[in-house]
Amino acid sequence: MTLTHFDDQGNAVMVDVSDKAESVRTAVAQGRVRAAPETIALIRDHGLRKGDVLAVAQLAGIMAAKRTPDLVPLCHPLPLSSVTVDLDLNAAESTVDITATCRLTGRTGVEMEALTAVSVAALTVYDMCKSVDRGMQIFDIKLRHKSGGRSGTWTSENTKS
Amino acid sequence: MTLTHFDDQGNAVMVDVSDKAESVRTAVAQGRVRAAPETIALIRDHGLRKGDVLAVAQLAGIMAAKRTPDLVPLCHPLPLSSVTVDLDLNAAESTVDITATCRLTGRTGVEMEALTAVSVAALTVYDMCKSVDRGMQIFDIKLRHKSGGRSGTWTSENTKS
Amino acid sequence: MTLTHFDDQGNAVMVDVSDKAESVRTAVAQGRVRAAPETIALIRDHGLRKGDVLAVAQLAGIMAAKRTPDLVPLCHPLPLSSVTVDLDLNAAESTVDITATCRLTGRTGVEMEALTAVSVAALTVYDMCKSVDRGMQIFDIKLRHKSGGRSGTWTSENTKS
Amino acid sequence: MTLTHFDDQGNAVMVDVSDKAESVRTAVAQGRVRAAPETIALIRDHGLRKGDVLAVAQLAGIMAAKRTPDLVPLCHPLPLSSVTVDLDLNAAESTVDITATCRLTGRTGVEMEALTAVSVAALTVYDMCKSVDRGMQIFDIKLRHKSGGRSGTWTSENTKS
Amino acid sequence: MTLTHFDDQGNAVMVDVSDKAESVRTAVAQGRVRAAPETIALIRDHGLRKGDVLAVAQLAGIMAAKRTPDLVPLCHPLPLSSVTVDLDLNAAESTVDITATCRLTGRTGVEMEALTAVSVAALTVYDMCKSVDRGMQIFDIKLRHKSGGRSGTWTSENTKS
Amino acid sequence: MTLTHFDDQGNAVMVDVSDKAESVRTAVAQGRVRAAPETIALIRDHGLRKGDVLAVAQLAGIMAAKRTPDLVPLCHPLPLSSVTVDLDLNAAESTVDITATCRLTGRTGVEMEALTAVSVAALTVYDMCKSVDRGMQIFDIKLRHKSGGRSGTWTSENTKS
Repeated sequence: MTLTHFDDQGNAVMVDVSDKAESVRTAVAQGRVRAAPETIALIRDHGLRKGDVLAVAQLAGIMAAKRTPDLVPLCHPLPLSSVTVDLDLNAAESTVDITATCRLTGRTGVEMEALTAVSVAALTVYDMCKSVDRGMQIFDIKLRHKSGGRSGTWTSENTKS
Repeated sequence: MTLTHFDDQGNAVMVDVSDKAESVRTAVAQGRVRAAPETIALIRDHGLRKGDVLAVAQLAGIMAAKRTPDLVPLCHPLPLSSVTVDLDLNAAESTVDITATCRLTGRTGVEMEALTAVSVAALTVYDMCKSVDRGMQIFDIKLRHKSGGRSGTWTSENTKS
Repeated sequence: MTLTHFDDQGNAVMVDVSDKAESVRTAVAQGRVRAAPETIALIRDHGLRKGDVLAVAQLAGIMAAKRTPDLVPLCHPLPLSSVTVDLDLNAAESTVDITATCRLTGRTGVEMEALTAVSVAALTVYDMCKSVDRGMQIFDIKLRHKSGGRSGTWTSENTKS
Repeated sequence: MTLTHFDDQGNAVMVDVSDKAESVRTAVAQGRVRAAPETIALIRDHGLRKGDVLAVAQLAGIMAAKRTPDLVPLCHPLPLSSVTVDLDLNAAESTVDITATCRLTGRTGVEMEALTAVSVAALTVYDMCKSVDRGMQIFDIKLRHKSGGRSGTWTSENTKS
Repeated sequence: MTLTHFDDQGNAVMVDVSDKAESVRTAVAQGRVRAAPETIALIRDHGLRKGDVLAVAQLAGIMAAKRTPDLVPLCHPLPLSSVTVDLDLNAAESTVDITATCRLTGRTGVEMEALTAVSVAALTVYDMCKSVDRGMQIFDIKLRHKSGGRSGTWTSENTKS
Repeated sequence: MTLTHFDDQGNAVMVDVSDKAESVRTAVAQGRVRAAPETIALIRDHGLRKGDVLAVAQLAGIMAAKRTPDLVPLCHPLPLSSVTVDLDLNAAESTVDITATCRLTGRTGVEMEALTAVSVAALTVYDMCKSVDRGMQIFDIKLRHKSGGRSGTWTSENTKS
C-alpha cells in the first residue's frame, strides 16, 4: 500500500494521467453544518423575506469547485462539465445538509471538486451566520459516491440518505 | 436577531467596516480528518521516509487562508499578518487533528481565514490518501478562539485541547 | 493634460500612491442590461418561484469587485471595506438596472472596483438569460459619484436616478 | 420558455454538458467606450509617443477571457484555443470600439469569454483615462456572432460593422 | 522570421490552436539558485530536522505550473496531465538545482508551464532563505527538452545533466 | 543562524508581522534574458512596426507582482502602493535587461514582489520569442536594493548598473 502522490524519492507529484482513458466521471460528496435551533430558524425565516443564506452558500460552492486546482496542491486542472450543490435545512437535527455533484469527461476523477464545493458552501453558511452563532460546527464531510475511471464505482457504506 | 450580511431589501452585502477601529485580531480554528488506522500508520511511516502528507497539507492550508476572499463571497480582502497551521497524527482516535491560527491588524476579524485554512488542509489530506482510503471523513471544524475587535474575546465551550 | 499610468519613457506603471494620505473613499457606479420584455418578465417570475437571476448576478458583482486588481492591469490591490450591488428590474424600459457602491479607507480610489462589480453583474445577467435572449445589450456603464482623496467629490452630470 | 441555469427546485446549477458533442465554437462580441474628443485625441497621440492605452487594454481583455469562469458563477472552465481583442479609435463618434473573438474545441460555447474580454478591455480604457475624463461611458456591449454547437450559428441583427 | 504572438496589425494575440491535432506533449525545464555555502548547508541541515525548504519550493513550483495562463498573458489555459518538480542541493557549486517536467494531451506545448514551475520554485527558495542571504541569484533558467506537437522534439545543446 | 519561515517543530509558517511598524518599503530587483542576436534584432524591429514584446512583458511583470502571495507560499498578501517594470534591449550583450521596483507602506518588505515581477516579465519574453529561439536563457535574477523596515537598507555588491 502506497501513496500515489509521491515519487520514489518522496517528492510530491501531480500524478501523470496522460495514459488514462477519457471517461465520464461523477462524484457526489456531502457535508453538514450543525447550528443552534434559533440559527436554523433564522436561516429559514430570512430566506423567505430578507435574503437567502442557502442561495449564497450554494453559489459559493459551485464557484469553489472550479477553484479546486488552485487550492489542493496536487489536483489536476479540469474542464468540469457540471456542478450542482444543494443545501437543505434539517430542523429535526438542527443542521444544514449539503450535497455536491460534479461531472467531467476526462482522465481523472472529480472527488476533490465535489468535496471542495461542499466545504466552501459550509464555510459560507458559517460566515453568514457567525454574527449570531459562533459555535457552529462543520462535520460529516465525505465522499458518498463516485463512478467512472479505472477504479470504477464506489459508494460510501454509511451514507446518510 | 438578524443577519448582518443582508441589507433591508434582502440583498447580500459585504458589510461596511470603514468605521471600525484597527486592532490586532486573532482567530484559532480546528478540524479533524477521521481515517482508517492503516491510513494513519501510512501517513506516519511515509512522512519519515517517502514524502510527508502533513507538510503538503499544512502548506495548502496556509495558502488557502490567503484565498479566503476569493472563496467566501462576502469576506473582506485582508492583508493577513500571520498564518500558522499545525497537523498532528492522533493514533489513539485514528484522526489527523488540524489547528490554524490567523492574525491581522485591521478592521475585521479573521475567523473565516482560520476556518478556510483548516478546511483546505483537511481536503488536502483527503486528496493525498484517497487512493488507499476513500471513506475518510472531515469533521469537527469549528472556531476555537477569537480575540480583538468590538465583539472582543470568544472561546468555544467544548474545545478539544 | 497627460495620462498618469505611463512614465516619461511611455512605460505603463502602477502609479505610486505611497505619499497619498489615507482617507475614506467611496465610489458609486451604474450600468444597465437591455433585454426583450419577455426576458424581463421571465427574470421577474422566475425569481419568485424558480431561482433568482438577480441574486446570482448581485453576488457575482460583489465577488468581482474583489478581483479588480487581477483584471485591470494597473489597479492597486486594495483591502475594500464595503461592497454593495443592487439590481432592479425596470419593466418600463425593459432593462435590468445595476448600481454598485464600494468603500475603502486607503490611499487610492475605488472607482474601478465599483465599475467592475457592475460589469460582471451585467455579464452574469447575460449568461443566465442567453439561452432565451442572445440579443441583450449591456450599456450605460459609468461612474455616478466618487468622494474622498485629493481630487475630492465628483458627480456625473447626467445621472439616471 | 425557461432558464437553463436553474434546476426544478430553483437552485442555480452549472449546466451539465457531458452529453454534448465536441465541436469548434466561435464567438464574436463587441463593446464601445464613449469619451470626450480630447480624450480620444490624447489616446491617439499618446500611443504614438508616450505609451499605448489600447495595447494595455487589449492585453487586459485577452487575460480576462481566461478568467471568465472565475468571474461568471455558472460558466464552465474551458481550455480556450484562441482569443483576439481589437481596439480602434473612432474619432468621428468619439469612441473606442472594441471587438473580441474567442474559439474553443469543446462542449460549450464561448460567448461569455468574448463578452468578458470586451468588458475588461473597456474597463481598462476607463482606468487609464479616468484621471483626465471621469465621465466616460461603456456601452453597446453585445454578442455579434456565434457558431458551433447544437444551437448553430447566430448573428446579431443590428451589428455595427 | 516573425513572432507568432502578433497579428498583421501588431496586436498581441493568443494564437489559434483549434486546427492543431491533440498529441502527448512533454517539456522539461531547469533553473538554478546560487547561494552562499553556509546557506546551502543550512538548507541541508534544516531539512533533516527543522523544516524542509526544498519541499516547500517543490510544492510551490507544482502549484505555479497550474497558474501559468494567469501569469503569462498569451498562454493558453491547459488541463495539464502531469507536473513534477525536483530540487537538488549541489554543494560543489553552492547551488540549488531545479528541474520541472510537465505533460499534456492537447493542442499546444507545455514549455511555459515547466519554465514557470522552475521560476516559482526558485523564487520560493529565495523567499525562505532571504533572511540569511539576500545576495542569492537565480540563473540558468532554460528549456532542456520538449517533445510532441508539430515542431516535434527539441533538446538544448548545452544541457547540464 | 536560522530560517524564519519555520517554527520550532519545523512547520512552515507565514511569519507574524503584527508587531512590526508600518514604514515605506522599497525593493528593486533585476533579471536578464539571453537570446540570439537575431532574436534581439527581431524584438527591436517588431516593436517599431508590428507589436511590442517588451510592452507585453512589462505589463505581465506588473500584474505578476500583484499575484506574488498566490505564488510564493509564505508571502504576506500586501496592498502594494507602486510597481514599475522596465525592459531594455542590450544589443551589445544580446540580452533583454529587466528591472522592477515595488513600494509599500506596510509591515513587511516587497523584495519577493519585485523578484516575481522580473521573473514573469522574463518568462513572457521567452513565451513570445520561443517560436524563433527556444534556446533563450533567463539569468542574473537578483535583488539589487531594498530600503525600509527593521533591517534597513541593503544594496547588492555586484550590481550591474
